[in-house]
Amino acid sequence: MIEHIDVEEGIWVDELLRRGKGCAFGLGRLSQAADILYEMVSGDTTVFMGLAGAMVPAGMRNIITELIRRGCIDVLVMTGANIVHDLIEALGYHHLKGPYLKDDIELRKRGISRIYNVYISDEAFESLEKWILTIYEEIVSSYTHNFAIPISELLSYIGSKIDDKNSIMRAAYDMKVPVFCPAIQDSILGLHAWLFNQTKRLSVDVFSDMRKIIDIAYQAESSGAIIIGGGVPKNFILQTMLVTPKGFDYVIQLTMDRPETGGLSGATLEEAQSWGKVSENAKTVTVYSDATITLPILVASLFTRLKR
Amino acid sequence: MIEHIDVEEGIWVDELLRRGKGCAFGLGRLSQAADILYEMVSGDTTVFMGLAGAMVPAGMRNIITELIRRGCIDVLVMTGANIVHDLIEALGYHHLKGPYLKDDIELRKRGISRIYNVYISDEAFESLEKWILTIYEEIVSSYTHNFAIPISELLSYIGSKIDDKNSIMRAAYDMKVPVFCPAIQDSILGLHAWLFNQTKRLSVDVFSDMRKIIDIAYQAESSGAIIIGGGVPKNFILQTMLVTPKGFDYVIQLTMDRPETGGLSGATLEEAQSWGKVSENAKTVTVYSDATITLPILVASLFTRLKR
Amino acid sequence: MIEHIDVEEGIWVDELLRRGKGCAFGLGRLSQAADILYEMVSGDTTVFMGLAGAMVPAGMRNIITELIRRGCIDVLVMTGANIVHDLIEALGYHHLKGPYLKDDIELRKRGISRIYNVYISDEAFESLEKWILTIYEEIVSSYTHNFAIPISELLSYIGSKIDDKNSIMRAAYDMKVPVFCPAIQDSILGLHAWLFNQTKRLSVDVFSDMRKIIDIAYQAESSGAIIIGGGVPKNFILQTMLVTPKGFDYVIQLTMDRPETGGLSGATLEEAQSWGKVSENAKTVTVYSDATITLPILVASLFTRLKR
Amino acid sequence: MIEHIDVEEGIWVDELLRRGKGCAFGLGRLSQAADILYEMVSGDTTVFMGLAGAMVPAGMRNIITELIRRGCIDVLVMTGANIVHDLIEALGYHHLKGPYLKDDIELRKRGISRIYNVYISDEAFESLEKWILTIYEEIVSSYTHNFAIPISELLSYIGSKIDDKNSIMRAAYDMKVPVFCPAIQDSILGLHAWLFNQTKRLSVDVFSDMRKIIDIAYQAESSGAIIIGGGVPKNFILQTMLVTPKGFDYVIQLTMDRPETGGLSGATLEEAQSWGKVSENAKTVTVYSDATITLPILVASLFTRLKR
Repeated sequence: MIEHIDVEEGIWVDELLRRGKGCAFGLGRLSQAADILYEMVSGDTTVFMGLAGAMVPAGMRNIITELIRRGCIDVLVMTGANIVHDLIEALGYHHLKGPYLKDDIELRKRGISRIYNVYISDEAFESLEKWILTIYEEIVSSYTHNFAIPISELLSYIGSKIDDKNSIMRAAYDMKVPVFCPAIQDSILGLHAWLFNQTKRLSVDVFSDMRKIIDIAYQAESSGAIIIGGGVPKNFILQTMLVTPKGFDYVIQLTMDRPETGGLSGATLEEAQSWGKVSENAKTVTVYSDATITLPILVASLFTRLKR
Repeated sequence: MIEHIDVEEGIWVDELLRRGKGCAFGLGRLSQAADILYEMVSGDTTVFMGLAGAMVPAGMRNIITELIRRGCIDVLVMTGANIVHDLIEALGYHHLKGPYLKDDIELRKRGISRIYNVYISDEAFESLEKWILTIYEEIVSSYTHNFAIPISELLSYIGSKIDDKNSIMRAAYDMKVPVFCPAIQDSILGLHAWLFNQTKRLSVDVFSDMRKIIDIAYQAESSGAIIIGGGVPKNFILQTMLVTPKGFDYVIQLTMDRPETGGLSGATLEEAQSWGKVSENAKTVTVYSDATITLPILVASLFTRLKR
Repeated sequence: MIEHIDVEEGIWVDELLRRGKGCAFGLGRLSQAADILYEMVSGDTTVFMGLAGAMVPAGMRNIITELIRRGCIDVLVMTGANIVHDLIEALGYHHLKGPYLKDDIELRKRGISRIYNVYISDEAFESLEKWILTIYEEIVSSYTHNFAIPISELLSYIGSKIDDKNSIMRAAYDMKVPVFCPAIQDSILGLHAWLFNQTKRLSVDVFSDMRKIIDIAYQAESSGAIIIGGGVPKNFILQTMLVTPKGFDYVIQLTMDRPETGGLSGATLEEAQSWGKVSENAKTVTVYSDATITLPILVASLFTRLKR
Repeated sequence: MIEHIDVEEGIWVDELLRRGKGCAFGLGRLSQAADILYEMVSGDTTVFMGLAGAMVPAGMRNIITELIRRGCIDVLVMTGANIVHDLIEALGYHHLKGPYLKDDIELRKRGISRIYNVYISDEAFESLEKWILTIYEEIVSSYTHNFAIPISELLSYIGSKIDDKNSIMRAAYDMKVPVFCPAIQDSILGLHAWLFNQTKRLSVDVFSDMRKIIDIAYQAESSGAIIIGGGVPKNFILQTMLVTPKGFDYVIQLTMDRPETGGLSGATLEEAQSWGKVSENAKTVTVYSDATITLPILVASLFTRLKR
């Protein structure tokens, strides 16, 4: 039965979700997502998070970091862009926020790049370049072997060099959460590697992380996935189950993508069951809404429930 | 500057919005919407609400009712469907909630109609038919004139006959909030009118509400609009300003529609400024997200701020 | 089996659709829509068209008119806005096309209103006002009764006064295709009626068209619907079947709206089967794509097939 | 001025686009895309294509292959999934097409995986596994060095081994079009590499393709991009310009993604100008519509114009 939600002054975020349980569509699904998230994180479940979309530029950095530091995430798969923007903040630069409509030609002339209504200066990227080239140099110098290193090792090394407790990469390093970034060359980090490789040789292996992530999935008693925004992270997490006897037991998907065009980002979690990526009796829900709204709500609810 | 949001256990809904002010995209816009909503409602502003989409079936009924009872809304423009579903609940019937995928042919055989994953029985509609025919009869019998009555008068009469404090229509009647429904025949109420008119003559006028709503807009010192889901209510509210010297001073739009195809539902509020529907210095924001999520959040925040 | 489409120089639009029959997602659905449309129009089926969205401003006017003049449409349900823009062109004014991003405040100062990247001058609306007030005057003067006239009669009268063979309204008048516009007051025509009623009395009835459209649906041996863009026209067409023993036998829906938020515009045609609006064995398809692309393609295909 | 499109029996696809030039929204943009595409391909421009989304499962394989074979594409960046599905067809397996709604648990039991309404059997994947493991073996055996090979070399080798003229990978090999797939491990090919590396060592380098694609971009007199569906291919193509003095001169983007959430897939091409990825005077257009519809139309138009 649809139970109409009541709200009054001073209700908690978690309370809103509890009351929304009897509602349909977005709120009902968000409420269900909170239940699945809590069950996933509080139990003996290995939790994978997939992070795509401009989540760091949006202001979601601290939330991800806090989730890691509180031990809510066991494996992180993310886009290169989110790593880059995390590093930029770690180096002391900031993303600026402005009105949506700016003259993009003018912005370029002033050395500013735009992500919808978020702005970032060329200076920040130059500073990152200098920093990362040093890191690449250190890694290459410390090679005690002549084979390519895994992407996750490169990222772990980067994480270890960051001096910012709010950094996602540093938190992951501190908490021993492996970070995977399958398309790392599809980011500024890739361009820096190209620059570095003009004179040196940073050799990173494409496939060697496969074993690491598959082993984690294989050994998990129970497994869950928090999918934010589709893309490579979504599939890279889900596909690990194609070579294990089980599928994910819990999946939450926060997205604005739609299923009708057949793309993987918008694909339903039922579809993932036909592949065996998600198990037959899995608890799953997709919340079709802007993830910058739904993620903080879910995290606020999770922390409240974990405290009890 | 983008300020990354922090969340912890037990934060209030309103606090989440306050903290999200430095974020971009959805959360930043939702936070801005909360500010605009509070300024609009707490000041000397005439507030119009446009209500489209399956908001009553979704479980948003009590929120709308409470907004009316607390005096936050001065004018309500809604779809016939939302009126119908409000009446069904007022008659003691409920909307049921189920899994999304059901066999629709089977549902029909069992006398159940589906709104995504909300279900409603034929029995509820039959009961509404009986009730509304009596109402129509009463109205026709009480005609002391031979001209068609305005839609808003028909709706006000209906509201007066409802015995359910949670009803939107009853709350509007109690609080003297005029309810406009320009496309009333595009709903079950229209079909009931057709049935009634087989033997009787319920005469309702198309244009006579124009004066009422335009007068309200005209006399408003300051005016604001809360647009939920586009459709006829959105345009009917905004177009009133085409014949007044001013435009809306505040507008919040909660929608999933997109602007690129040119449809009015997805049109930006900047576009509305070119028409003069929204004033030059208006405070406006569009939140692209499922309104069943954003509306309860905004209302919880509003009630918290009003209490202070 | 998926059959990959081949294209080469000089293929016909219809041929593209025939070849796309073995494809999935958008193209497969569009190909299926062409088949359903041809079967619907070439057979003994009563065809309803629902027209929402800014289709006239987009440049789709001649296509709709041609469909009517060729006898492909039996009933037209449209938004007030599309009528208004049809009339504006009939009066010799044009919609202008420009870049998307313009300064809306500046546009207002120059007396130009914007529909995404389509522009229309205040002069056109002023000219329409003068013209329509004369029409309203004529209608009122010719009243031989003291009851409100149906909306469709008002529209038919308007159509008869247009001197432009490309006009949708004129074509409908010429071809005796009834035009329904349930939310007519939600348009400039409504504002003109308000203006007119400052001193006169144009009395138009809300419900009296119900009988006309339901009778057509009732008497149809077979019935089909072409739904462009959702909104009031979609539901007003589909709901007629709630009071007939049958449902629609054919339905094509061209839309960008999505089903997940529960709104009627984005609702699937399967959902409509649970209501009995669409019959159990109906041939239906929804094409999720911009209708300004899919409609001309479907019409070009239809005319080609009809010629054979 | 908006010029309303006329269509009649037997018009060519290209003619439809020519006539749609005066229309707004989707059709106007598609018409503009055809002009840009022709100018890009017919001139002395280096053309990059980004291919994301389930385009091969959709039935778009032959079109891509034909574009390559006719010399219209110089560089191809694609997702691993599209490569996998191309290989499956090359091995003689087919994608099946069915109704959208199937029981996914039942599908899994029967060894069938679903992509919306496209179905593929486990048998096809098993056959691919056997084939690709042989290929990996051959590559490793032929190593004359001890460093990791670039992804594009791995893909070129795969292409050379395909015996199917309709294969995208074979066509690219034949026409010496480099194929980049930055996230190759995010696909079945990655899982096969994991399997292979249980006992052997296939060493592929993450960053060594950067030089190849950047050199191409650097040396291009003029450059153009056809972006289908966003994702990694979109950014990987566009970002190459961050390290060259110029930006892209022509860009066509076919997508259903939206800009408001800040994600790169839905980002506008104006935004890309602020980064310098797209040049100040570039000719660009984004068509918001299902690419399975717009791509075949654009290609049919292109071939027609090239023939003249």
